[in-house]
Amino acid sequence: MNQPVKLGIAGLGTVGVGVLDMISRHKDLLAVRAGRPLEVVAVSARDRSKPRGGHDLSDMDWYDDPAEMARSAGIDVFVELIGAEEGAARLAVEAALERGLHVVTANKALLAVHGTKLARLAEDRGVALNFEAAVAGGIPIVKAMRESLSGNGIRKVFGILNGTCNYILTKMDTDSRDFADVLKEAQDLGYAEADPAFDIGGHDAAHKVACLTALAFGTEVSLDSIYIEGIEHIQLQDIRNAADLGYKIKLLGVALETDDGIEQRVHPTLVPKGSPIAEVDGVFNAVGVHGDFADDLMLVGRGAGAHPTASSVMSDICDIARGVVLQPFGVPASRLQPYKRARMRAHEGGYYVALELFDRSGEVAAVARIFADNNISIESIVQRGPASLSVHEHHDGSARDTAPFILITHDTLESAMRAALEAITEQGHVAVPPRMIRIERF
Amino acid sequence: MNQPVKLGIAGLGTVGVGVLDMISRHKDLLAVRAGRPLEVVAVSARDRSKPRGGHDLSDMDWYDDPAEMARSAGIDVFVELIGAEEGAARLAVEAALERGLHVVTANKALLAVHGTKLARLAEDRGVALNFEAAVAGGIPIVKAMRESLSGNGIRKVFGILNGTCNYILTKMDTDSRDFADVLKEAQDLGYAEADPAFDIGGHDAAHKVACLTALAFGTEVSLDSIYIEGIEHIQLQDIRNAADLGYKIKLLGVALETDDGIEQRVHPTLVPKGSPIAEVDGVFNAVGVHGDFADDLMLVGRGAGAHPTASSVMSDICDIARGVVLQPFGVPASRLQPYKRARMRAHEGGYYVALELFDRSGEVAAVARIFADNNISIESIVQRGPASLSVHEHHDGSARDTAPFILITHDTLESAMRAALEAITEQGHVAVPPRMIRIERF
Repeated sequence: MNQPVKLGIAGLGTVGVGVLDMISRHKDLLAVRAGRPLEVVAVSARDRSKPRGGHDLSDMDWYDDPAEMARSAGIDVFVELIGAEEGAARLAVEAALERGLHVVTANKALLAVHGTKLARLAEDRGVALNFEAAVAGGIPIVKAMRESLSGNGIRKVFGILNGTCNYILTKMDTDSRDFADVLKEAQDLGYAEADPAFDIGGHDAAHKVACLTALAFGTEVSLDSIYIEGIEHIQLQDIRNAADLGYKIKLLGVALETDDGIEQRVHPTLVPKGSPIAEVDGVFNAVGVHGDFADDLMLVGRGAGAHPTASSVMSDICDIARGVVLQPFGVPASRLQPYKRARMRAHEGGYYVALELFDRSGEVAAVARIFADNNISIESIVQRGPASLSVHEHHDGSARDTAPFILITHDTLESAMRAALEAITEQGHVAVPPRMIRIERF
Repeated sequence: MNQPVKLGIAGLGTVGVGVLDMISRHKDLLAVRAGRPLEVVAVSARDRSKPRGGHDLSDMDWYDDPAEMARSAGIDVFVELIGAEEGAARLAVEAALERGLHVVTANKALLAVHGTKLARLAEDRGVALNFEAAVAGGIPIVKAMRESLSGNGIRKVFGILNGTCNYILTKMDTDSRDFADVLKEAQDLGYAEADPAFDIGGHDAAHKVACLTALAFGTEVSLDSIYIEGIEHIQLQDIRNAADLGYKIKLLGVALETDDGIEQRVHPTLVPKGSPIAEVDGVFNAVGVHGDFADDLMLVGRGAGAHPTASSVMSDICDIARGVVLQPFGVPASRLQPYKRARMRAHEGGYYVALELFDRSGEVAAVARIFADNNISIESIVQRGPASLSVHEHHDGSARDTAPFILITHDTLESAMRAALEAITEQGHVAVPPRMIRIERF
């Protein structure tokens, strides 16, 4: 067992350098814990001249093409840290698996789009396809679901899966600032990309949900079935209203088994203050799972960053060093079940609704009637006096004052909620389109 | 790989029955996830006539003596759910390991007292000694530390490790009730034992700290080196004062690497409101780890109960079914380092101090002077008016009013704090002994 494990690392961005940092800082500790020394013998990146955190790469074989490294380097494990679901990463991972190399990857997009196929390929070749770092960075949720919860039927998994969104929502709340203002700050600090659409639109979180769903329910990965709503439309006023009602707003990813199939969704969500997930602030991520034996379990940690992500990459490498090769999604890939989608219209839950009601007699009664007609039962209402500064033009052309009318509903069908909001808008009770945010009560 | 894994279960109390529940409910799922069917072929318990959750044991071999089962049953894995560090459990586990059987145990006392020796025995025989269920019930902290954090130097691990204490402290806070009152309720509800000393005195949490310390630092298990203080002396007034100052009180277990050695301690602790661990209420447990790469990681879940504990037992069994045999404490047992104890007097941290100061001029100044003389810097003070109902006899024999004088210090040496409190008491500034609670700031 004392043969070194030979690693090839494709992608030397921040995470790749993080892995090199770890191997150089903890060389002896890793050999003791993994049972074998770890040796990086090959690397691949686009630009050979870039500094790589001061690491000397001269003893390692350099490959311009990661797929070429996968095909011909003298390695046991191919570590893919390139990213993106197509292109170099996909070609290289497929080549590595075809050749019978173990693969460790931090690439959530690749798994979310091609996970089922890649898992089958790994299984055919009898090699590992490990992706701890692809979901929630440094949080060991893949291992927890794949191994620790083996004896549990899982009904629900959910989480704060995007640190950029959580940072923005936290800052809006603590500093009472607008979305655009905080987004700009996050970009300046490097917490948000120059083009933030992928994060704030919920797409990054959706990739992670796709992986968690397959792990939880033993189904094929199905990114396209996820209902996705980002945080762009969240207003500071919504965060304040939520606080008044005892909630915080988080971007949650949720996968839930229902009678109609599996619900996968990513959307801003009101969570009760004082619940553990509500206190996960800033760039931290959290994943909660409900197992029928373990009951509620939640893991909180760093969802991104070079070193936390490297920690998860190394967990996967050490498993391979110890000879542990597991089924990528916890059950044989050939037995992953076809994914059956539960439609969002069939979703049941509480809702937060913010209306800018025209300030005239009968409006509240009319709106209450519409909710009642749709079998929507209201749990609490916050009504504020007319907002004298918000003068809106009514649909009949007259300008009128409006007043915010905020409510929380008991559990309701999404189709009923949509019908009610459509009626409220069509009948001209509101000056601007209603804002609706879903609630998870835990 | 389709040979069944043959299990022998010793101890058919609530957890043992929980494991039987799981195997009967999830037979097929477990076979798929573990790669092999699981079969309970032998059981051992004291009383053959007791009902065991409706499970039919007639096909299983019955052993009155668990050590006899370990020596002669036709099993692959010995599952020890008896408990206690000596007696039947120890004899049976030793016999099983000697024979070369894999062992899965939920017995924290056994591990905390004999962990080093048993790990060496398992290593000699090349078998597993898995104990996920021994630390924090259904929370997969052993696997997280042993596998997921393999690439991390660990500096600190801490947690809420006793659900009984957390329930009592939570109820005192939310219901404004006294310790004795809530303890009685906890006993009536079955959350506390008839003899609660083991839980509320901090000893149960200490067993878990001993295991976490070995996992974190690769040191021999050393229960005797743990500083232990229970929650018996916590007053409702302390919880209220802590709340006013922005803290909650939790019983924490902490293991920390310092320049002087390793600090292991269990004591009531002020934790800042809004920090994730402060929101872990009721019977829930939580464990936080700081890794030098993963950064902060926290796991929250059920720390006890038949089904959550069975979930962890099964995680260990499934690993064995998959052929995974790991080093019990994450490094070879033969390489566990001798434990070097850092004395509690060398501990550094913040302190909460509650004094019943005699209400006369000069007392506050005198007390402030004592703190200053001991290089203790005060962060905040809450002084209340004289408590007219608290008339205490002064040391000169006169009866005087007292007033509560509450303070929080900046980081301070424990030896300095002890000296200051001794001086305050000896010089007769207080009517009753000072109360002191340590702070963890995170």
